Amino acid sequence: MTIAAPAAPAPSLDILGIGNAIVDVLARADDGFLAARDLPKGGMRLIGPEDAETLYAEMAPGIESSGGSGANTCAVAAMFGAKVGFLGKVADDQLGKVFAHDIRAVGVTFPTAPLAAATAPTARCLILVTPDGQRTMNTFLGACVHFSAGDLDAALIEAAAVTYLEGYLFDPPAAQAAFYEASRIAHHAGRQVAITLSDPFCVQRHRQAFRKFVREEADILFANEAEICALYETDRFEEAAALVRQDVALAALTRSEHGSVVVTETEMHPVAARPARVQDTTGAGDAYAAGFLAALTRGKPLPECGKWGSVAAAAVISEFGARPLDALKAAVASVG
Amino acid sequence: MTIAAPAAPAPSLDILGIGNAIVDVLARADDGFLAARDLPKGGMRLIGPEDAETLYAEMAPGIESSGGSGANTCAVAAMFGAKVGFLGKVADDQLGKVFAHDIRAVGVTFPTAPLAAATAPTARCLILVTPDGQRTMNTFLGACVHFSAGDLDAALIEAAAVTYLEGYLFDPPAAQAAFYEASRIAHHAGRQVAITLSDPFCVQRHRQAFRKFVREEADILFANEAEICALYETDRFEEAAALVRQDVALAALTRSEHGSVVVTETEMHPVAARPARVQDTTGAGDAYAAGFLAALTRGKPLPECGKWGSVAAAAVISEFGARPLDALKAAVASVG
Repeated sequence: MTIAAPAAPAPSLDILGIGNAIVDVLARADDGFLAARDLPKGGMRLIGPEDAETLYAEMAPGIESSGGSGANTCAVAAMFGAKVGFLGKVADDQLGKVFAHDIRAVGVTFPTAPLAAATAPTARCLILVTPDGQRTMNTFLGACVHFSAGDLDAALIEAAAVTYLEGYLFDPPAAQAAFYEASRIAHHAGRQVAITLSDPFCVQRHRQAFRKFVREEADILFANEAEICALYETDRFEEAAALVRQDVALAALTRSEHGSVVVTETEMHPVAARPARVQDTTGAGDAYAAGFLAALTRGKPLPECGKWGSVAAAAVISEFGARPLDALKAAVASVG
Repeated sequence: MTIAAPAAPAPSLDILGIGNAIVDVLARADDGFLAARDLPKGGMRLIGPEDAETLYAEMAPGIESSGGSGANTCAVAAMFGAKVGFLGKVADDQLGKVFAHDIRAVGVTFPTAPLAAATAPTARCLILVTPDGQRTMNTFLGACVHFSAGDLDAALIEAAAVTYLEGYLFDPPAAQAAFYEASRIAHHAGRQVAITLSDPFCVQRHRQAFRKFVREEADILFANEAEICALYETDRFEEAAALVRQDVALAALTRSEHGSVVVTETEMHPVAARPARVQDTTGAGDAYAAGFLAALTRGKPLPECGKWGSVAAAAVISEFGARPLDALKAAVASVG
């Protein structure tokens, strides 16, 4: 936990996200398709270009739409009225143009220079949506592995009330250094740093690095139950929730249909989930963080931040895809 | 009208489509967005690469999915159980791979060699869907203009009971010659040739060429009310329907919510539209032709062919996009 410097000028951005810049390919699949390929349902795994080709060839027809966990959060937060920027690496190719268009079209500032397409293509995530609405993600990181501290835009970080870091960026090698540098810039400017743990397997891959970053750099933590338990190597959510209060000033812990818990050192606010008919859980956690941060940077009290998170998540899981515009518009109207 | 030779061997394909190979970019837009840019609602216009860039930059976030009128028909017909092939020109780029994947993933044979990406990119259609569910299409043809008689696969044409030609291919210059050559190959093998007029503006651009092809080459014609009236330069549907019976052996004429009329020289079958809550009319005509041809090549009587067309069209307009898999699966089950 880091205490913000007191004399910072008013931020001109609410949220600056840093994450993997990914185009999603969503397709329906049945449980047998996952079983035949040993794909653990509900998780995210990293795949290389050959596996991406093979799996794509076997998948049903898809729908392409811009994704990326942190980028989804930024897009949804912008729809909730926040002023938002995003940093992430696409290639100078067709999918990179799709990604850039979509995030800019919702009003998010996106300045990162694209990578030469010959070096690596824009990342894609092959998402298999089973009849129960769960999504199983297979990510080919492509250009994302080239994101480095050189891609940080210091002026945007200094301008943002909260710099929001996507935990998945602990996978590409150069990005952890960029996170520390981003945190240094943000705190020096009197701003806050938020991070999401992204995925329990990602936490397992980088547990010590996550613990260090959460303890030493993060002001705000987002995690779901599996992720926070993975971070603290426990099966008991209550134990993990108690531990996180010692490490970070503010944490929002989501528990699917059981809602979320917002904790600080001295406060604990349970937040109810919003009812929704689950179509596709892709982007639920991203949307929760978006609603939460949009409310927080608008000065709302913590229970209200949790409510905005729940409303955004319910809208996203009730439709196919991580940024369903119509459902999100209705959600925004409902929190007024 | 051409009489099929009697002694042809049984076809191993039901339908071979030839059309523009296009990836759709669907986005919501309001009427003011169309009005400010003088875009006639419900139509298709051709745009160059610069206009495509400009319009895309101004559009809302999109969803990419494989499209193309004839390709949509092929994909939907395959879902209705027909054995289908498709010929159309993509580039060797990311959107070309998306197009090829999606049409192959529903079981359609797609052998056309891609164009070098440096020559022209894969075609895209920027589709603006207004709140009333109508779609306004802006097509950058890209690689499609390079489709020529050299891309015809004679063995597939000879193998198909019906070669189905997309009228939009009257726009790219080399494709008309390819249509005549495809018709020659098909008839020589004792097969039938179907054509769809695609779009009233396309008919206006190429009226004499369409009339000649319909009269001299086509065995089956698909058209909606505006298209058949444009072909015969009349405001009266009944007059157009009477004229078409002199030119072609079988015509299926669609009239939106008023259903369709299936006519031959001696028969006339009115077909009711299926009730649907209209979300997005993209692909309605394509789906009608798919259902119709899937039934026809299975030997169903003409009223049944029209019914399959109506069922397929209703499924497509009740969802966003031209190939909504879940809705189409339900439609297929309903005609069982």
